[in-house]
Amino acid sequence: MRAVTFQAPGEVRIEEKPVPELGAADDALIRVEASGICGSDLHIFHGQVPVEPGFTIGHEFVGTVLAAGADVERVAVGDRVLGCFHTACATCATCLRGDYHRCERGRIFGHGANLGDLQGAQADQLLVPRANVTLRRVPEGMSDDVALFAGDVMGTGYHAVAHAGMRSGDTVAVLGLGPVGLCAVQAALAGGASKVFAIDSVEQRLAMAADFGATPVHLTEEEPKRVVRAATEKRGVDVVVDAVGAAAPLAMAVSLCRDAGTVSGIGAYAGKGEVPLGLAWLKGLTLRLGLANVIAHVDRVLSLIEAGKLDPSPLVTHHMKLDEAAEAYAIYDRREALKIVLTP
Amino acid sequence: MRAVTFQAPGEVRIEEKPVPELGAADDALIRVEASGICGSDLHIFHGQVPVEPGFTIGHEFVGTVLAAGADVERVAVGDRVLGCFHTACATCATCLRGDYHRCERGRIFGHGANLGDLQGAQADQLLVPRANVTLRRVPEGMSDDVALFAGDVMGTGYHAVAHAGMRSGDTVAVLGLGPVGLCAVQAALAGGASKVFAIDSVEQRLAMAADFGATPVHLTEEEPKRVVRAATEKRGVDVVVDAVGAAAPLAMAVSLCRDAGTVSGIGAYAGKGEVPLGLAWLKGLTLRLGLANVIAHVDRVLSLIEAGKLDPSPLVTHHMKLDEAAEAYAIYDRREALKIVLTP
Amino acid sequence: MRAVTFQAPGEVRIEEKPVPELGAADDALIRVEASGICGSDLHIFHGQVPVEPGFTIGHEFVGTVLAAGADVERVAVGDRVLGCFHTACATCATCLRGDYHRCERGRIFGHGANLGDLQGAQADQLLVPRANVTLRRVPEGMSDDVALFAGDVMGTGYHAVAHAGMRSGDTVAVLGLGPVGLCAVQAALAGGASKVFAIDSVEQRLAMAADFGATPVHLTEEEPKRVVRAATEKRGVDVVVDAVGAAAPLAMAVSLCRDAGTVSGIGAYAGKGEVPLGLAWLKGLTLRLGLANVIAHVDRVLSLIEAGKLDPSPLVTHHMKLDEAAEAYAIYDRREALKIVLTP
Amino acid sequence: MRAVTFQAPGEVRIEEKPVPELGAADDALIRVEASGICGSDLHIFHGQVPVEPGFTIGHEFVGTVLAAGADVERVAVGDRVLGCFHTACATCATCLRGDYHRCERGRIFGHGANLGDLQGAQADQLLVPRANVTLRRVPEGMSDDVALFAGDVMGTGYHAVAHAGMRSGDTVAVLGLGPVGLCAVQAALAGGASKVFAIDSVEQRLAMAADFGATPVHLTEEEPKRVVRAATEKRGVDVVVDAVGAAAPLAMAVSLCRDAGTVSGIGAYAGKGEVPLGLAWLKGLTLRLGLANVIAHVDRVLSLIEAGKLDPSPLVTHHMKLDEAAEAYAIYDRREALKIVLTP
Repeated sequence: MRAVTFQAPGEVRIEEKPVPELGAADDALIRVEASGICGSDLHIFHGQVPVEPGFTIGHEFVGTVLAAGADVERVAVGDRVLGCFHTACATCATCLRGDYHRCERGRIFGHGANLGDLQGAQADQLLVPRANVTLRRVPEGMSDDVALFAGDVMGTGYHAVAHAGMRSGDTVAVLGLGPVGLCAVQAALAGGASKVFAIDSVEQRLAMAADFGATPVHLTEEEPKRVVRAATEKRGVDVVVDAVGAAAPLAMAVSLCRDAGTVSGIGAYAGKGEVPLGLAWLKGLTLRLGLANVIAHVDRVLSLIEAGKLDPSPLVTHHMKLDEAAEAYAIYDRREALKIVLTP
Repeated sequence: MRAVTFQAPGEVRIEEKPVPELGAADDALIRVEASGICGSDLHIFHGQVPVEPGFTIGHEFVGTVLAAGADVERVAVGDRVLGCFHTACATCATCLRGDYHRCERGRIFGHGANLGDLQGAQADQLLVPRANVTLRRVPEGMSDDVALFAGDVMGTGYHAVAHAGMRSGDTVAVLGLGPVGLCAVQAALAGGASKVFAIDSVEQRLAMAADFGATPVHLTEEEPKRVVRAATEKRGVDVVVDAVGAAAPLAMAVSLCRDAGTVSGIGAYAGKGEVPLGLAWLKGLTLRLGLANVIAHVDRVLSLIEAGKLDPSPLVTHHMKLDEAAEAYAIYDRREALKIVLTP
Repeated sequence: MRAVTFQAPGEVRIEEKPVPELGAADDALIRVEASGICGSDLHIFHGQVPVEPGFTIGHEFVGTVLAAGADVERVAVGDRVLGCFHTACATCATCLRGDYHRCERGRIFGHGANLGDLQGAQADQLLVPRANVTLRRVPEGMSDDVALFAGDVMGTGYHAVAHAGMRSGDTVAVLGLGPVGLCAVQAALAGGASKVFAIDSVEQRLAMAADFGATPVHLTEEEPKRVVRAATEKRGVDVVVDAVGAAAPLAMAVSLCRDAGTVSGIGAYAGKGEVPLGLAWLKGLTLRLGLANVIAHVDRVLSLIEAGKLDPSPLVTHHMKLDEAAEAYAIYDRREALKIVLTP
Repeated sequence: MRAVTFQAPGEVRIEEKPVPELGAADDALIRVEASGICGSDLHIFHGQVPVEPGFTIGHEFVGTVLAAGADVERVAVGDRVLGCFHTACATCATCLRGDYHRCERGRIFGHGANLGDLQGAQADQLLVPRANVTLRRVPEGMSDDVALFAGDVMGTGYHAVAHAGMRSGDTVAVLGLGPVGLCAVQAALAGGASKVFAIDSVEQRLAMAADFGATPVHLTEEEPKRVVRAATEKRGVDVVVDAVGAAAPLAMAVSLCRDAGTVSGIGAYAGKGEVPLGLAWLKGLTLRLGLANVIAHVDRVLSLIEAGKLDPSPLVTHHMKLDEAAEAYAIYDRREALKIVLTP
C-alpha cells in the first residue's frame, strides 16, 4: 500500500509499504478514504518534532473498517468510521480520571517512535489500536470533509472553550485564527457565547471568523485590548483562548481576560516563556494549558456537526490525491492552504 | 397611582394607591412601562397562593428609574431598567454561596405577606428594594417585550438547563411547553443542545417549539419514550426539564433520561408525589428541583437576548392596557394567551 | 474448588466447581484469600434479587493473582490485589464519561445472569474480567480485613459524600448506620466534615459512629430534625446521606437538608415511593440517587485507608471459614453481625 | 484612640487618632481586642506596597461590636466578631458570581488609598464597612488567637486547596512554609489529603509542618522532585500550592504536579516571570493564581476550627501590646516571629 512518509526536514515521500495486520484483540484495520494535513504535520515536516525517516505521518482520517479484533465492540467491519488523533488505554489511572489526552500508554498517530511509535493515517490503510476508544461511526449523511476533523482540530476547538468552563452567555476572545482558532470560534458560538472576538492579522481568516459570527479584530491595525474593553464595560472577556501557543499571545490573553476569568492555552507551547504573573495574580486568573482531550469530546462534537451547529468544511481549501502529498506539504508550508484533504 | 390588586379568587381589580416612597438606602422607585402576566399570577388568581385582598400583584417589569437611594450604585435615575422577580440581600449565608433564590431575606414581588410583603409590578410605579441586586439596565435597542422576561420566565428557562449542567452537544427533553418550557427550549438550543425534544399536547405550542428548532413530540398521540429512545440509540437524553411540576411529568422525565443524567424540575411542585425511586436509582440520576436562581443568570440571559440567541418575543400573544387587567386575567385564565404584556 | 452457591431463598451451600480459566486477554485469575458478606448478599439470600440456583455469590474480595491475560497491565501474577464489586468496559459511551457504575457492559460479581452472569467471590478462586479496571494492588502492609472493603462498602461510603459535592467544613447527616452508613460517616469526617449527625435506632451502631467522631442521634428517642436544626442555626445540614434506600428516610433527608443542599441516596431504592416534592422544590434541593461509582474512587479510598483516615476494620465483627458459609449467612440474616469476613 | 501607622519604609509609629464614626447604614464600629501582624504588613513596612504616611495598618482582627448601622443584620452590638481582611459590596457583577476577592468596589483594611482607603485594624477601634459581608460572630469558646486568622491567613490556606479542587484522598505539595503555607498544609490535611509534602528550607517550619501531619522535605538538602516522584509512582502530586509567589517556586510547582493536575499560586506574584510553559502544556496543567476569596470560605473555616480540624494557634509565636508595635515590626522584620498578635 502507499504511505506518506517523513524523510528529512522539508521532505515527505510516498513509499510502498506492506499492509498492516491486526495484532491485539482491540485492533481495527481501516481503509483510509480521506486524511487531513494538520499544523502539527507541519511541525514534523519542519523537523521540530523528531520523527524517524520512513515513518508514515498523518493523524486525521475517515475510512471503512476492513477487519477488527475480537474485542472490538463499538464499530464493526464495513462501518464508515472516523478517528481521534491519538489512542488511549482507558484503564490507566489517568484515563480512569477522564484525562484521556494524558493516557500513560497513549500513542499519537504518525508522530514517530517518541510519541507511541504508531504509523500514520496518510496511507491506503491504517492499523488502529484501542479501536473502541479511538474510532466512532460516522453519522449517516456526514461528509468525509467534515467527519475527519471531529477527532482532531474541531475536537480541539471544542476543548478550548469547554475546558475553560465557558457558559452560555459568556464573552470569549480567540487569539490566532488558524484551523484550531477558527474551530474554537465555532465551538464558542455553538455553546452560547454571546460575543466572540476573533483576533489575527490575516484578513482572510478574520473574514472567515466574521462569517462564522465572530467580531473580527485585527491584531496590529486595531488595539485588541481597547476593543475588548470597550465592548465589555472595561471588564474583559470571560474566556480567552490562546490558539497560538507562545508567550506573547499568552500575555495578551491575560490582558484581555476579566477578573477571575479563564485563559485556555491550546496552542503548542514549548520551552520557557515570560508570563505577566503579577497581572494574572492580581486578576485572579485560571490558566488551563495542554493538548485537547478529544476522546472525551468527540461524541458531542459529532452531535453538534450533525445538528449543523459546527461545520469545519469552510476550512478545507484544497482537495488533493494521496500521490500528490509532496506537493500538498509544499503548498501547506507556503501557507497557501488552510486545510488540505488527501483522498486515495 | 393605578395598581392591579388581588381581591378574591377569580377577581382582580384596578385600585388607586399612593405612590410608594424610598425607604432603605438601596431602594429604587420605578415608573413601570411594561409588566407581564405570568403563570404564577394565575396561581394567585385561583387562590392557590394566598395573597391578601388589595395586594398589588405582578413580578415581571420594565421601566425607568424615578428615584434611587444613596447606596444604589448599579443603576441611576433616568435609566431604563428591568427587574428580577424577587429581591435578595446578597449578604446572608445562602446568598454568599450564590443561591440567591433561597435568600434568607428574599422577597417576591406581588406574592403577598407570606412571601416578603412586597407590592407588585402591575402598577404605575413600583418600589424596588435591593436595587443593586434586583435591577439591570436594559441594553440599548432591546424592546420592552423582550427585556421584561430576562429576570423571570426566560431566566427560569436558562436556569432549567444551566442548573442541570447541560453541555454543548448534549441532548435535552423539555416536558410542558408553557412559557417556561418554551424558554427552556430556547435556552437549551442557545447553549448548544444538539437535539431538543419538546413535549406537550397543545399543537400550537408544539409548533412554536418546532419553530425555535426543537423536535416536537405530542404527549399522547406519540410515545415520548419511544421517540426519545429511537433517536438516542436507546440511551435517553442527557438532560430532562420538567416544566410542569407534578409527579406524573417527573416520572416521565425519569423514564426519558439516560443513565447518570440529570432531571431539572423547574415547575412548581406541591405536596407529596409518587416518584419511581427504583428506576431513578437504577439509572443513577440527579434530580435538581426548585425555583430558578434568576439573579445569578440575568446578565448572561441579557447578553444572549442581545446577541439574538434568545428571543422571548414570540411568547407575547397579547398586548393590553393596565386598565384592562381584569379582562387580561380572564383571557389568561381561559388559556387563550401564552403571555400578556400590560402597558400604562 | 469450593464455592458458596445460592440454592433457594434462605439456603446457600458450598459446592465443588471446576477452577475457572482465563478467556479474554484482560482476564485475571485470583486465589481468593478473604471475601466479605455484604448487605446485597442478603438480598440474594432472601430471594429479592433473582439468582440462579448453583450460582456462586459474593463480590468483596482480596487475593493473589494466579494468572493474567496478555492485556493485563495494571497488576501481575503474584500481586496481592483487591477488587471492585463490578467490572466495567471503560470504553462505552457511559464509561468514557466516567460513569463506570452504569457501564453498558458492566457485570456485578455474584449477582446471577441478570446482572452480568459473573460467578462470585466467595470461592477458592475467582475469574476477574476487565482486570485493569476491576483490580488494584493492595498497598504494602494493608490487612485483608481493610483492603477488601475499598472496592465495595467503603467505596460506597466515599461516593455518598463525594457525589454530593461535600466540601471541607460542611455539615452532614447520615441516615442508617449499617456498614455503608458507617463508611459514609468515616468518609465525611475524612473529607473535612465539620459535624456529622449519625442517625439510627441501634445503640451499638450509634456508639460506633460516635467512636468515629460523629454526633449520634437516636432515630426515635430523639427528634433528628430538631437536633439538626438546633445545631445549624435552624438551617439544616449541607449534605444528607440516605444509606437506607426507602421513601421514609428520603423524606426525612429532605427535611434535614438546608436550602439548596444535596441529598445523596445511596441505599437501594425499589419501586415507587412517595416523596415530599413540594418541600424539596421549595428548598431547591439536589437529589442524587444510585449505586456507587467505586471504580472512580478506589484509588483515593485506598490512599485514605493507607493514610489512616479511613478504617473499615471496626465493621468486621466475625471471621469465619469458607466452609462455614451457611452458618455465616444465618448469623448475618439474624443481624448478629455487622460484617463477616470469610477466609479459605 | 491609639493606632499603628505607617510612616516611612522601616518605620511604624503609634499615633493618637479620633475614634471613627459610623457612616453608611451597613457600617459597624469595632473595639479591637486582638490584631495580627501579617506578611503583607511587612510588604508595607518595606515600602513595597505604597501606603500614605500616617495611614493605620493591619487587617487581621477580633473584637466587639460597639455600634452598627441600621442595615447591619448579621451581627449586633455587643457581639464578639472577627473580620475578613477586605470588604466586598456583594452586589457588583463580580461579587454576584461569587468572586468576592475581585469585588469591583472592594477595599482592603490598612493598605492605603490605592487599595480602598480603609484605615487598618492595629488600633483601639476600627470602622468596618459592609459589615454583613465582612464580619462573622466568633463561635463560643474560640480564642482570639485562633479566630483572628479565619478571615485572613487560614482562609487563604483553605482557599489554596479548595480553589485547586483538591479532593479527599488526593496528594498535595506545599511550597513555602510561612504562615500561609502552614495554613495550607493544615487545610489540605483537614480536607482529606492522603499525603502532604511540605517544602521549605527552614528547619523550624519543616518541623511544625511535620507536627501537623505533613511529610517535610528540605528544599535544598533533599531533592523535592525526586522525593515526590518516589512517593507517587513517578506521577507527581494532584495539587501543588505555591505559597511563595515567584517564578522559581512556580517552576518547581509545575515539575512536582502530576499530569492534568492543578497548581494553586496563592503567593503574591509581581511583575513578569519565566514559566516552563512547554512542560506545563505537555502535562496539561491548570494554574490558578490570585488572592484568596476568604469571604466565600470564612464560614467553613470557622466550622473547621470549631471542630478542631484547623488550628492556627501554633503559628502565634509572640504576643505583644499595641504600644509595642514598633518593636513587634522590628522582630517580624528580622524573621524571629512566625505570627505576632497585638492586644490593647
